Amino acid sequence: MSEPLDTIFNKILKGEMPCHKVYEDDDFLVILDVFPAHIGHCLVIPKIPAKDIYELDEGLAAKLFPLVQKIARIVKETTGCDGINVLQNNGIAAEQTVFYFHTHIIPRFDSDGIVMKRPTNKFTKEHFEEMAGKLSSRL
Amino acid sequence: MSEPLDTIFNKILKGEMPCHKVYEDDDFLVILDVFPAHIGHCLVIPKIPAKDIYELDEGLAAKLFPLVQKIARIVKETTGCDGINVLQNNGIAAEQTVFYFHTHIIPRFDSDGIVMKRPTNKFTKEHFEEMAGKLSSRL
Repeated sequence: MSEPLDTIFNKILKGEMPCHKVYEDDDFLVILDVFPAHIGHCLVIPKIPAKDIYELDEGLAAKLFPLVQKIARIVKETTGCDGINVLQNNGIAAEQTVFYFHTHIIPRFDSDGIVMKRPTNKFTKEHFEEMAGKLSSRL
Repeated sequence: MSEPLDTIFNKILKGEMPCHKVYEDDDFLVILDVFPAHIGHCLVIPKIPAKDIYELDEGLAAKLFPLVQKIARIVKETTGCDGINVLQNNGIAAEQTVFYFHTHIIPRFDSDGIVMKRPTNKFTKEHFEEMAGKLSSRL
């Protein structure tokens, strides 16, 4: 890690700020997002600090998605939502606003006002092949 | 699972459709999204079919995020992107368009035209406490 993190999530984890707790174990805290489009929007926060996905502890990375899956099932059953987005943002350009790794579980409803749009740009077959080759050569 | 899936990803996994492969192991296939905003947008697809997060094999759920993390690091290094969104959509209301579980790794650049906006609605302390209680009672 580059530097000690000092975010609202550090304060919540230390008990210095209140939260609406949904779940806690040795590795993660799950709380309600306090600025949701719809109640039930959860945030999954690892207890080992990390700014973003690049820094996330690899042991916690393996435990993250089973917990996200469990929470998603329960959010769906409890809110009756029509869909769920799992979203994890890294960097200002990707809409990260709290610089402590966290995963959103967002209940979605038809016409809920949430907008997720990406333009489709044109790339050639050669562009795709070059990029696939570059990425795969590093894996 | 409710019914056999018949999507473009089943065809790609069976080798009946081409793809730009980035990585493959016994559990997952990683390919380039062919309708990206920016080249380098990857899709992580589990080999055990599942329509969505609720159905995803739990063994694969544990292996998913370590792979996503590895791909995210390499996408960042290779594309030089300013940020990354990890996004996984479930249901039409959540913008799922291919009904086979998949996780997007989306390289982001300043002013790349991708829009992710959600309205913030007002809920009372009682709303939050009631929902936190309902969710936590099921975990």
